Amino acid sequence: MAAVAFVRLSSLSCGVGDRCLSSPTKHWSQKRCLKIRASSSNLDPKVQTLLDSVKWDSKGLAVAIAQNVDTGAILMQGFANREALEVTISSRKATFYSRSRSSLWTKGETSMNFINVHDIFLDCDRDSIIYLGEPDGPTCHTGAQTCYYSSVYDLLDDSEFKQDRLALTTLYSLENTISLRKHEIDSMENGKPSWTKKLLLDKELLCSKVREESGELVQTLLDNEDKSRTASEMADLLYHAMVLLKLKDVKMEDVLEVLRKRFSKSGVEEKNSRKSSLKQS
Amino acid sequence: MAAVAFVRLSSLSCGVGDRCLSSPTKHWSQKRCLKIRASSSNLDPKVQTLLDSVKWDSKGLAVAIAQNVDTGAILMQGFANREALEVTISSRKATFYSRSRSSLWTKGETSMNFINVHDIFLDCDRDSIIYLGEPDGPTCHTGAQTCYYSSVYDLLDDSEFKQDRLALTTLYSLENTISLRKHEIDSMENGKPSWTKKLLLDKELLCSKVREESGELVQTLLDNEDKSRTASEMADLLYHAMVLLKLKDVKMEDVLEVLRKRFSKSGVEEKNSRKSSLKQS
Repeated sequence: MAAVAFVRLSSLSCGVGDRCLSSPTKHWSQKRCLKIRASSSNLDPKVQTLLDSVKWDSKGLAVAIAQNVDTGAILMQGFANREALEVTISSRKATFYSRSRSSLWTKGETSMNFINVHDIFLDCDRDSIIYLGEPDGPTCHTGAQTCYYSSVYDLLDDSEFKQDRLALTTLYSLENTISLRKHEIDSMENGKPSWTKKLLLDKELLCSKVREESGELVQTLLDNEDKSRTASEMADLLYHAMVLLKLKDVKMEDVLEVLRKRFSKSGVEEKNSRKSSLKQS
Repeated sequence: MAAVAFVRLSSLSCGVGDRCLSSPTKHWSQKRCLKIRASSSNLDPKVQTLLDSVKWDSKGLAVAIAQNVDTGAILMQGFANREALEVTISSRKATFYSRSRSSLWTKGETSMNFINVHDIFLDCDRDSIIYLGEPDGPTCHTGAQTCYYSSVYDLLDDSEFKQDRLALTTLYSLENTISLRKHEIDSMENGKPSWTKKLLLDKELLCSKVREESGELVQTLLDNEDKSRTASEMADLLYHAMVLLKLKDVKMEDVLEVLRKRFSKSGVEEKNSRKSSLKQS
Protein backbone atom coordinates (compact mmCIF):
# COMPACT_ATOMS: atom_id res chain seq x y z
CA MET A 1 0.00 0.00 0.00
CA ALA A 2 1.37 3.40 -0.86
CA ALA A 3 1.68 6.24 1.60
CA VAL A 4 1.18 9.94 1.00
CA ALA A 5 4.13 11.91 2.27
CA PHE A 6 5.36 15.46 2.25
CA VAL A 7 8.70 16.18 0.69
CA ARG A 8 10.95 18.25 2.82
CA LEU A 9 12.47 20.88 0.56
CA SER A 10 15.35 21.77 2.81
CA SER A 11 17.31 23.33 0.02
CA LEU A 12 14.66 25.95 -0.66
CA SER A 13 15.22 29.34 0.85
CA CYS A 14 12.29 31.00 2.54
CA GLY A 15 10.69 33.83 0.64
CA VAL A 16 9.06 36.79 2.35
CA GLY A 17 5.67 35.15 2.23
CA ASP A 18 6.87 31.87 3.57
CA ARG A 19 6.93 30.99 7.16
CA CYS A 20 10.14 29.34 8.20
CA LEU A 21 9.84 26.72 10.86
CA SER A 22 12.61 26.25 13.30
CA SER A 23 13.35 23.01 15.15
CA PRO A 24 12.78 20.22 14.42
CA THR A 25 12.05 20.67 10.76
CA LYS A 26 14.35 23.60 10.00
CA HIS A 27 13.47 25.09 6.66
CA TRP A 28 10.24 23.77 5.31
CA SER A 29 8.54 25.60 2.53
CA GLN A 30 4.98 25.04 3.58
CA LYS A 31 3.33 26.56 0.53
CA ARG A 32 5.42 24.44 -1.73
CA CYS A 33 5.04 21.21 0.20
CA LEU A 34 4.50 18.57 -2.41
CA LYS A 35 2.59 15.44 -1.80
CA ILE A 36 4.20 12.44 -3.29
CA ARG A 37 3.30 8.85 -3.21
CA ALA A 38 6.12 6.93 -1.67
CA SER A 39 6.05 3.23 -2.14
CA SER A 40 6.21 1.46 1.18
CA SER A 41 8.49 -1.05 -0.49
CA ASN A 42 11.17 1.59 0.05
CA LEU A 43 10.33 1.73 3.71
CA ASP A 44 13.16 1.50 6.21
CA PRO A 45 12.91 -2.03 7.71
CA LYS A 46 13.13 -0.56 11.21
CA VAL A 47 10.12 1.65 10.53
CA GLN A 48 8.33 -1.36 9.05
CA THR A 49 9.01 -3.36 12.22
CA LEU A 50 7.84 -0.50 14.38
CA LEU A 51 4.63 -0.10 12.37
CA ASP A 52 4.08 -3.85 12.68
CA SER A 53 4.40 -3.59 16.45
CA VAL A 54 1.44 -1.21 16.76
CA LYS A 55 -1.83 -2.93 17.64
CA TRP A 56 -4.02 -1.54 14.89
CA ASP A 57 -7.71 -2.15 15.46
CA SER A 58 -10.01 -4.07 13.11
CA LYS A 59 -10.14 -0.99 10.86
CA GLY A 60 -6.36 -0.59 10.89
CA LEU A 61 -6.48 2.42 13.20
CA ALA A 62 -5.04 3.56 16.51
CA VAL A 63 -5.95 6.64 18.55
CA ALA A 64 -3.54 9.55 17.95
CA ILE A 65 -3.45 12.45 20.40
CA ALA A 66 -1.63 15.69 19.55
CA GLN A 67 -0.15 17.38 22.61
CA ASN A 68 1.62 20.73 22.93
CA VAL A 69 5.24 19.96 23.79
CA ASP A 70 5.60 23.11 25.88
CA THR A 71 2.33 23.50 27.73
CA GLY A 72 1.09 19.91 27.75
CA ALA A 73 -2.29 21.03 26.37
CA ILE A 74 -4.09 18.31 24.46
CA LEU A 75 -4.59 19.98 21.10
CA MET A 76 -6.79 17.45 19.30
CA GLN A 77 -7.41 13.74 18.95
CA GLY A 78 -7.76 11.80 15.77
CA PHE A 79 -6.86 8.40 14.44
CA ALA A 80 -3.77 7.15 12.66
CA ASN A 81 -3.34 4.21 10.33
CA ARG A 82 0.03 2.78 9.30
CA GLU A 83 0.50 5.39 6.60
CA ALA A 84 -0.41 8.30 8.85
CA LEU A 85 2.11 7.23 11.47
CA GLU A 86 4.72 6.53 8.81
CA VAL A 87 4.25 10.02 7.32
CA THR A 88 4.35 11.64 10.76
CA ILE A 89 7.58 9.84 11.62
CA SER A 90 9.28 11.03 8.44
CA SER A 91 7.72 14.46 7.94
CA ARG A 92 7.44 15.45 11.61
CA LYS A 93 4.05 16.99 10.82
CA ALA A 94 1.17 15.46 12.81
CA THR A 95 -0.76 13.38 10.27
CA PHE A 96 -3.99 11.47 10.77
CA TYR A 97 -6.39 9.23 8.91
CA SER A 98 -9.75 10.85 8.32
CA ARG A 99 -12.47 8.26 8.81
CA SER A 100 -15.08 10.46 7.17
CA ARG A 101 -13.01 11.16 4.07
CA SER A 102 -11.18 7.82 4.04
CA SER A 103 -7.88 9.56 3.44
CA LEU A 104 -4.76 10.81 5.14
CA TRP A 105 -4.64 14.38 6.27
CA THR A 106 -1.86 16.40 7.73
CA LYS A 107 -3.11 18.87 10.31
CA GLY A 108 -2.37 22.30 8.84
CA GLU A 109 -2.40 21.31 5.17
CA THR A 110 -5.26 23.77 4.67
CA SER A 111 -4.92 26.19 7.59
CA MET A 112 -1.10 26.18 7.61
CA ASN A 113 -1.38 25.56 11.34
CA PHE A 114 0.82 22.51 11.32
CA ILE A 115 1.74 20.63 14.47
CA ASN A 116 5.51 20.23 14.32
CA VAL A 117 6.23 16.91 15.94
CA HIS A 118 9.21 16.72 18.31
CA ASP A 119 8.61 13.20 19.52
CA ILE A 120 6.09 10.39 19.19
CA PHE A 121 5.14 8.02 21.99
CA LEU A 122 3.31 4.70 22.03
CA ASP A 123 1.47 3.51 25.11
CA CYS A 124 2.07 0.28 27.01
CA ASP A 125 -0.52 -1.56 24.90
CA ARG A 126 0.82 -0.11 21.66
CA ASP A 127 -2.63 0.97 20.54
CA SER A 128 -2.47 4.67 21.44
CA ILE A 129 -0.11 7.32 20.12
CA ILE A 130 0.97 10.77 21.32
CA TYR A 131 2.27 13.28 18.80
CA LEU A 132 4.22 15.67 21.03
CA GLY A 133 4.59 18.84 19.04
CA GLU A 134 4.69 22.57 18.61
CA PRO A 135 1.60 24.03 16.94
CA ASP A 136 2.06 26.83 14.41
CA GLY A 137 -1.25 28.37 15.48
CA PRO A 138 -4.67 27.46 16.83
CA THR A 139 -5.42 23.78 16.33
CA CYS A 140 -9.21 23.73 16.27
CA HIS A 141 -11.09 24.47 13.06
CA THR A 142 -13.18 26.91 15.13
CA GLY A 143 -10.09 29.00 15.77
CA ALA A 144 -9.79 27.88 19.38
CA GLN A 145 -6.30 26.99 20.63
CA THR A 146 -7.40 23.40 21.20
CA CYS A 147 -10.49 21.37 20.37
CA TYR A 148 -11.39 20.94 24.05
CA TYR A 149 -13.34 23.96 25.24
CA SER A 150 -16.63 22.47 26.49
CA SER A 151 -16.64 21.64 30.17
CA VAL A 152 -19.18 18.98 31.08
CA TYR A 153 -19.73 20.53 34.50
CA ASP A 154 -20.31 23.94 32.92
CA LEU A 155 -22.84 22.39 30.56
CA LEU A 156 -24.63 20.78 33.51
CA ASP A 157 -24.59 23.96 35.54
CA ASP A 158 -27.87 25.80 35.98
CA SER A 159 -26.25 29.17 35.45
CA GLU A 160 -27.41 31.13 32.46
CA PHE A 161 -23.85 32.32 32.02
CA LYS A 162 -22.54 29.59 29.74
CA GLN A 163 -19.27 30.29 28.05
CA ASP A 164 -16.58 28.24 26.35
CA ARG A 165 -13.67 27.42 28.61
CA LEU A 166 -10.51 25.68 27.47
CA ALA A 167 -9.31 22.59 29.31
CA LEU A 168 -6.48 24.22 31.25
CA THR A 169 -4.05 22.57 33.61
CA THR A 170 -2.99 24.31 36.82
CA LEU A 171 -0.30 26.67 35.53
CA TYR A 172 -2.45 27.88 32.64
CA SER A 173 -5.54 28.09 34.78
CA LEU A 174 -3.61 30.46 37.05
CA GLU A 175 -2.33 32.39 34.04
CA ASN A 176 -5.93 32.69 32.85
CA THR A 177 -7.08 33.98 36.24
CA ILE A 178 -4.36 36.64 36.20
CA SER A 179 -5.45 37.61 32.67
CA LEU A 180 -9.05 37.95 33.86
CA ARG A 181 -7.95 40.32 36.62
CA LYS A 182 -5.98 42.37 34.10
CA HIS A 183 -9.01 42.47 31.86
CA GLU A 184 -11.18 43.67 34.73
CA ILE A 185 -8.75 46.53 35.31
CA ASP A 186 -8.42 47.41 31.61
CA SER A 187 -12.17 47.36 31.04
CA MET A 188 -12.80 49.17 34.33
CA GLU A 189 -15.20 46.42 35.33
CA ASN A 190 -16.29 46.49 38.90
CA GLY A 191 -15.17 43.66 41.04
CA LYS A 192 -13.95 43.01 44.50
CA PRO A 193 -10.41 44.10 45.26
CA SER A 194 -7.91 41.31 44.81
CA TRP A 195 -4.22 40.89 45.52
CA THR A 196 -3.53 40.18 41.84
CA LYS A 197 -5.15 43.47 40.85
CA LYS A 198 -3.20 45.33 43.51
CA LEU A 199 0.04 43.89 42.11
CA LEU A 200 -0.94 44.67 38.53
CA LEU A 201 -1.58 48.29 39.49
CA ASP A 202 1.58 48.79 41.54
CA LYS A 203 4.83 47.89 39.77
CA GLU A 204 7.00 48.79 42.74
CA LEU A 205 5.00 46.51 45.02
CA LEU A 206 5.10 43.71 42.44
CA CYS A 207 8.86 44.02 41.94
CA SER A 208 9.54 44.04 45.67
CA LYS A 209 7.34 40.94 46.08
CA VAL A 210 9.18 39.04 43.33
CA ARG A 211 12.51 39.84 45.02
CA GLU A 212 11.12 39.03 48.46
CA GLU A 213 9.67 35.69 47.38
CA SER A 214 12.92 34.63 45.73
CA GLY A 215 14.68 35.46 48.99
CA GLU A 216 12.20 33.39 50.96
CA LEU A 217 12.60 30.45 48.59
CA VAL A 218 16.38 30.62 48.99
CA GLN A 219 15.99 30.80 52.76
CA THR A 220 14.17 27.45 52.84
CA LEU A 221 17.34 25.88 51.46
CA LEU A 222 19.78 27.77 53.67
CA ASP A 223 17.72 27.17 56.83
CA ASN A 224 16.97 23.58 55.87
CA GLU A 225 13.23 24.15 56.20
CA ASP A 226 10.87 21.33 55.37
CA LYS A 227 9.83 20.47 51.82
CA SER A 228 6.34 21.85 52.15
CA ARG A 229 7.80 25.31 52.93
CA THR A 230 9.93 25.13 49.79
CA ALA A 231 6.93 24.13 47.65
CA SER A 232 4.91 26.95 49.17
CA GLU A 233 7.60 29.60 48.62
CA MET A 234 8.20 28.41 45.07
CA ALA A 235 4.45 28.70 44.46
CA ASP A 236 4.58 32.28 45.79
CA LEU A 237 7.53 33.15 43.57
CA LEU A 238 5.97 31.57 40.51
CA TYR A 239 2.66 33.35 41.03
CA HIS A 240 4.22 36.80 41.53
CA ALA A 241 6.58 36.28 38.57
CA MET A 242 3.57 35.31 36.43
CA VAL A 243 1.81 38.55 37.37
CA LEU A 244 4.93 40.34 36.14
CA LEU A 245 4.83 38.31 32.92
CA LYS A 246 1.23 39.45 32.42
CA LEU A 247 2.24 43.11 32.74
CA LYS A 248 4.83 42.46 30.03
CA ASP A 249 2.33 40.47 27.94
CA VAL A 250 4.59 37.42 28.01
CA LYS A 251 3.05 33.97 28.24
CA MET A 252 4.38 31.00 30.14
CA GLU A 253 4.38 29.23 26.78
CA ASP A 254 6.95 31.78 25.54
CA VAL A 255 9.11 31.11 28.60
CA LEU A 256 8.87 27.36 28.10
CA GLU A 257 9.86 27.75 24.47
CA VAL A 258 13.02 29.52 25.61
CA LEU A 259 13.74 26.71 28.08
CA ARG A 260 13.08 24.04 25.45
CA LYS A 261 15.46 25.64 23.00
CA ARG A 262 18.12 25.90 25.68
CA PHE A 263 17.74 22.58 27.38
CA SER A 264 15.51 20.06 25.76
CA LYS A 265 16.71 17.83 23.05
CA SER A 266 15.15 15.60 20.48
CA GLY A 267 14.97 11.93 21.37
CA VAL A 268 18.17 11.19 19.48
CA GLU A 269 20.02 14.16 20.92
CA GLU A 270 18.82 13.22 24.39
CA LYS A 271 20.13 9.73 23.91
CA ASN A 272 23.49 11.03 22.77
CA SER A 273 23.59 13.36 25.74
CA ARG A 274 23.47 10.40 28.07
CA LYS A 275 26.75 9.24 26.58
CA SER A 276 28.38 12.65 26.62
CA SER A 277 26.80 15.12 28.99
CA LEU A 278 26.32 18.48 27.40
CA LYS A 279 28.09 21.33 29.00
CA GLN A 280 25.11 23.54 29.53
CA SER A 281 22.75 21.11 31.16
CA MET B 1 -29.86 0.39 30.50
CA ALA B 2 -28.49 0.40 34.01
CA ALA B 3 -25.21 1.97 35.00
CA VAL B 4 -22.69 0.83 37.56
CA ALA B 5 -21.80 3.58 39.95
CA PHE B 6 -19.81 4.04 43.11
CA VAL B 7 -21.56 5.27 46.19
CA ARG B 8 -19.85 8.13 47.89
CA LEU B 9 -19.89 7.34 51.58
CA SER B 10 -19.16 10.82 52.78
CA SER B 11 -20.42 10.10 56.24
CA LEU B 12 -17.77 7.46 56.86
CA SER B 13 -14.74 8.52 58.80
CA CYS B 14 -11.38 7.39 57.52
CA GLY B 15 -9.76 4.59 59.45
CA VAL B 16 -6.00 4.27 59.80
CA GLY B 17 -5.81 1.95 56.84
CA ASP B 18 -7.92 4.10 54.62
CA ARG B 19 -6.57 6.74 52.38
CA CYS B 20 -8.52 9.95 52.56
CA LEU B 21 -8.79 11.85 49.36
CA SER B 22 -8.94 15.57 49.40
CA SER B 23 -10.57 17.74 46.73
CA PRO B 24 -12.74 17.12 44.82
CA THR B 25 -14.08 14.02 46.48
CA LYS B 26 -13.32 14.82 50.12
CA HIS B 27 -13.80 11.73 52.19
CA TRP B 28 -14.17 8.64 50.11
CA SER B 29 -13.71 5.28 51.70
CA GLN B 30 -12.02 3.53 48.86
CA LYS B 31 -11.96 0.09 50.40
CA ARG B 32 -15.62 0.27 51.14
CA CYS B 33 -16.69 1.71 47.83
CA LEU B 34 -19.82 -0.13 46.92
CA LYS B 35 -20.91 -0.73 43.40
CA ILE B 36 -24.56 -0.29 42.91
CA ARG B 37 -26.68 -0.47 39.87
CA ALA B 38 -28.41 2.81 39.39
CA SER B 39 -31.29 2.83 37.01
CA SER B 40 -30.81 5.46 34.35
CA SER B 41 -34.50 6.18 34.70
CA ASN B 42 -33.42 8.17 37.76
CA LEU B 43 -30.92 10.08 35.69
CA ASP B 44 -30.91 13.86 35.92
CA PRO B 45 -32.49 15.07 32.63
CA LYS B 46 -29.58 17.48 32.14
CA VAL B 47 -27.10 14.62 32.33
CA GLN B 48 -29.29 12.63 29.96
CA THR B 49 -29.29 15.52 27.47
CA LEU B 50 -25.54 15.87 27.78
CA LEU B 51 -24.99 12.15 27.23
CA ASP B 52 -27.28 12.35 24.19
CA SER B 53 -25.13 15.16 22.78
CA VAL B 54 -21.99 13.00 22.64
CA LYS B 55 -21.35 11.46 19.24
CA TRP B 56 -20.92 7.84 20.30
CA ASP B 57 -19.47 5.65 17.56
CA SER B 58 -21.17 2.58 16.07
CA LYS B 59 -20.14 0.62 19.17
CA GLY B 60 -21.47 3.30 21.50
CA LEU B 61 -17.98 4.49 22.45
CA ALA B 62 -15.95 7.69 22.48
CA VAL B 63 -12.24 8.13 23.15
CA ALA B 64 -11.51 9.13 26.76
CA ILE B 65 -8.13 10.58 27.68
CA ALA B 66 -7.05 10.96 31.30
CA GLN B 67 -4.76 13.95 31.86
CA ASN B 68 -2.96 15.08 35.01
CA VAL B 69 -4.59 18.35 36.07
CA ASP B 70 -1.33 19.73 37.47
CA THR B 71 1.38 18.62 35.06
CA GLY B 72 -0.66 18.12 31.89
CA ALA B 73 0.83 14.63 31.45
CA ILE B 74 -1.42 12.30 29.46
CA LEU B 75 -1.86 9.46 31.92
CA MET B 76 -3.73 6.91 29.80
CA GLN B 77 -6.30 6.61 27.07
CA GLY B 78 -9.31 4.36 27.02
CA PHE B 79 -12.86 4.43 25.79
CA ALA B 80 -16.05 5.56 27.47
CA ASN B 81 -19.61 4.57 26.77
CA ARG B 82 -22.67 6.42 28.11
CA GLU B 83 -22.49 4.63 31.44
CA ALA B 84 -18.76 5.22 31.89
CA LEU B 85 -19.17 8.95 31.32
CA GLU B 86 -22.24 9.04 33.52
CA VAL B 87 -20.38 7.32 36.36
CA THR B 88 -17.36 9.60 35.94
CA ILE B 89 -19.56 12.68 36.07
CA SER B 90 -21.18 11.58 39.32
CA SER B 91 -18.33 9.76 41.05
CA ARG B 92 -15.48 11.99 39.86
CA LYS B 93 -13.36 8.86 39.44
CA ALA B 94 -12.14 8.32 35.86
CA THR B 95 -14.20 5.41 34.54
CA PHE B 96 -13.92 3.65 31.21
CA TYR B 97 -15.53 0.88 29.21
CA SER B 98 -13.26 -2.10 28.74
CA ARG B 99 -13.67 -3.43 25.23
CA SER B 100 -11.87 -6.68 26.07
CA ARG B 101 -13.97 -7.40 29.16
CA SER B 102 -17.15 -5.76 27.86
CA SER B 103 -17.66 -3.99 31.17
CA LEU B 104 -17.17 -0.71 32.96
CA TRP B 105 -14.03 -0.23 34.97
CA THR B 106 -12.97 2.56 37.22
CA LYS B 107 -9.25 3.19 37.01
CA GLY B 108 -7.92 2.32 40.46
CA GLU B 109 -10.65 -0.11 41.49
CA THR B 110 -7.94 -2.77 41.83
CA SER B 111 -4.74 -0.76 42.32
CA MET B 112 -6.37 1.99 44.41
CA ASN B 113 -4.63 4.43 42.09
CA PHE B 114 -7.77 6.31 41.23
CA ILE B 115 -7.77 9.33 38.97
CA ASN B 116 -9.74 11.99 40.84
CA VAL B 117 -11.54 13.97 38.19
CA HIS B 118 -11.61 17.76 38.59
CA ASP B 119 -13.21 18.52 35.26
CA ILE B 120 -14.34 16.79 32.08
CA PHE B 121 -14.09 18.29 28.61
CA LEU B 122 -15.66 17.37 25.29
CA ASP B 123 -14.02 18.29 22.02
CA CYS B 124 -15.55 20.37 19.23
CA ASP B 125 -16.91 17.25 17.53
CA ARG B 126 -18.24 15.82 20.78
CA ASP B 127 -16.60 12.48 20.15
CA SER B 128 -13.54 12.82 22.36
CA ILE B 129 -13.37 13.33 26.11
CA ILE B 130 -10.71 14.56 28.53
CA TYR B 131 -10.85 13.48 32.15
CA LEU B 132 -8.74 16.17 33.83
CA GLY B 133 -7.73 14.72 37.16
CA GLU B 134 -5.34 14.12 39.98
CA PRO B 135 -3.90 10.59 40.06
CA ASP B 136 -3.49 8.88 43.43
CA GLY B 137 -0.39 7.09 42.17
CA PRO B 138 1.18 5.67 39.03
CA THR B 139 -1.41 5.17 36.32
CA CYS B 140 0.14 2.42 34.21
CA HIS B 141 -0.30 -1.22 35.19
CA THR B 142 3.48 -1.54 34.75
CA GLY B 143 4.01 0.89 37.61
CA ALA B 144 5.08 3.73 35.30
CA GLN B 145 3.64 7.16 36.02
CA THR B 146 1.84 7.15 32.67
CA CYS B 147 1.25 4.57 29.95
CA TYR B 148 3.36 6.52 27.44
CA TYR B 149 7.03 5.62 27.90
CA SER B 150 8.05 4.28 24.48
CA SER B 151 9.49 6.91 22.16
CA VAL B 152 9.17 6.00 18.50
CA TYR B 153 12.41 7.80 17.67
CA ASP B 154 14.22 5.94 20.45
CA LEU B 155 12.88 2.67 19.08
CA LEU B 156 14.12 3.58 15.60
CA ASP B 157 17.51 4.67 16.88
CA ASP B 158 20.48 2.42 16.14
CA SER B 159 21.89 2.86 19.60
CA GLU B 160 22.13 -0.24 21.73
CA PHE B 161 21.23 1.89 24.71
CA LYS B 162 17.46 1.55 24.61
CA GLN B 163 15.62 2.65 27.69
CA ASP B 164 12.08 3.62 28.53
CA ARG B 165 11.51 7.36 28.52
CA LEU B 166 8.28 9.01 29.59
CA ALA B 167 6.57 11.47 27.26
CA LEU B 168 7.60 14.66 29.05
CA THR B 169 6.69 18.21 28.13
CA THR B 170 9.25 21.00 28.41
CA LEU B 171 9.08 21.79 32.13
CA TYR B 172 9.27 18.13 33.13
CA SER B 173 11.93 17.36 30.57
CA LEU B 174 14.05 20.08 32.21
CA GLU B 175 13.22 18.71 35.65
CA ASN B 176 14.32 15.29 34.43
CA THR B 177 17.61 16.67 33.10
CA ILE B 178 18.32 18.31 36.46
CA SER B 179 17.52 14.99 38.18
CA LEU B 180 19.96 13.19 35.88
CA ARG B 181 22.71 15.64 36.82
CA LYS B 182 21.95 15.11 40.50
CA HIS B 183 22.06 11.37 39.95
CA GLU B 184 25.45 11.67 38.25
CA ILE B 185 26.77 13.50 41.29
CA ASP B 186 25.22 11.10 43.81
CA SER B 187 26.47 8.03 41.99
CA MET B 188 29.85 9.63 41.33
CA GLU B 189 29.45 8.90 37.64
CA ASN B 190 31.93 10.59 35.42
CA GLY B 191 30.59 13.15 33.11
CA LYS B 192 31.54 16.48 31.69
CA PRO B 193 31.23 19.42 34.04
CA SER B 194 27.93 21.20 33.72
CA TRP B 195 26.44 24.39 35.11
CA THR B 196 23.61 22.41 36.72
CA LYS B 197 26.11 20.22 38.58
CA LYS B 198 28.07 23.27 39.69
CA LEU B 199 24.88 24.77 41.12
CA LEU B 200 23.88 21.50 42.79
CA LEU B 201 27.28 21.35 44.50
CA ASP B 202 27.42 24.97 45.62
CA LYS B 203 24.42 26.16 47.62
CA GLU B 204 25.78 29.69 48.05
CA LEU B 205 26.26 30.07 44.31
CA LEU B 206 22.79 28.66 43.63
CA CYS B 207 21.13 30.97 46.15
CA SER B 208 22.91 34.02 44.80
CA LYS B 209 21.86 33.05 41.26
CA VAL B 210 18.17 32.68 42.24
CA ARG B 211 18.26 36.13 43.85
CA GLU B 212 20.18 37.59 40.91
CA GLU B 213 17.81 36.17 38.30
CA SER B 214 14.74 37.46 40.15
CA GLY B 215 16.40 40.90 40.15
CA GLU B 216 17.06 40.69 36.43
CA LEU B 217 13.46 39.66 35.74
CA VAL B 218 12.21 42.61 37.75
CA GLN B 219 14.59 44.92 35.89
CA THR B 220 13.00 44.02 32.55
CA LEU B 221 9.76 45.50 33.86
CA LEU B 222 11.31 48.58 35.47
CA ASP B 223 13.48 49.34 32.44
CA ASN B 224 10.71 48.51 30.00
CA GLU B 225 12.89 46.01 28.17
CA ASP B 226 11.43 44.03 25.32
CA LYS B 227 9.29 40.95 25.80
CA SER B 228 11.97 38.51 24.71
CA ARG B 229 14.23 39.74 27.52
CA THR B 230 11.45 39.12 30.03
CA ALA B 231 10.85 35.60 28.69
CA SER B 232 14.58 34.90 28.82
CA GLU B 233 15.02 36.18 32.38
CA MET B 234 11.95 34.28 33.55
CA ALA B 235 13.42 31.15 31.97
CA ASP B 236 16.66 31.76 33.88
CA LEU B 237 14.80 32.27 37.15
CA LEU B 238 12.64 29.20 36.64
CA TYR B 239 15.63 27.01 35.80
CA HIS B 240 17.70 28.12 38.81
CA ALA B 241 14.70 27.81 41.13
CA MET B 242 14.10 24.29 39.81
CA VAL B 243 17.70 23.34 40.63
CA LEU B 244 16.97 24.54 44.17
CA LEU B 245 13.78 22.44 44.23
CA LYS B 246 15.86 19.40 43.26
CA LEU B 247 18.21 19.96 46.19
CA LYS B 248 15.15 20.03 48.45
CA ASP B 249 13.64 17.00 46.67
CA VAL B 250 10.53 18.99 45.77
CA LYS B 251 8.84 18.39 42.43
CA MET B 252 7.20 20.98 40.23
CA GLU B 253 4.08 18.84 40.59
CA ASP B 254 4.12 19.57 44.35
CA VAL B 255 4.40 23.29 43.64
CA LEU B 256 1.55 23.16 41.16
CA GLU B 257 -0.61 21.32 43.67
CA VAL B 258 -0.05 24.21 46.10
CA LEU B 259 -1.00 26.70 43.40
CA ARG B 260 -4.08 24.69 42.42
CA LYS B 261 -5.31 24.54 45.98
CA ARG B 262 -4.78 28.27 46.39
CA PHE B 263 -6.07 29.52 43.10
CA SER B 264 -7.84 27.08 40.89
CA LYS B 265 -11.44 26.30 41.28
CA SER B 266 -13.77 23.63 40.08
CA GLY B 267 -15.84 24.49 37.05
CA VAL B 268 -18.77 25.55 39.16
CA GLU B 269 -16.65 27.57 41.55
CA GLU B 270 -14.88 29.20 38.63
CA LYS B 271 -18.21 30.17 37.18
CA ASN B 272 -19.34 31.65 40.47
CA SER B 273 -16.09 33.52 40.74
CA ARG B 274 -16.86 35.36 37.54
CA LYS B 275 -19.88 36.80 39.27
CA SER B 276 -18.10 37.65 42.48
CA SER B 277 -14.36 37.87 42.21
CA LEU B 278 -12.63 36.09 45.03
CA LYS B 279 -10.46 38.17 47.21
CA GLN B 280 -7.31 36.15 46.83
CA SER B 281 -7.17 35.88 43.08
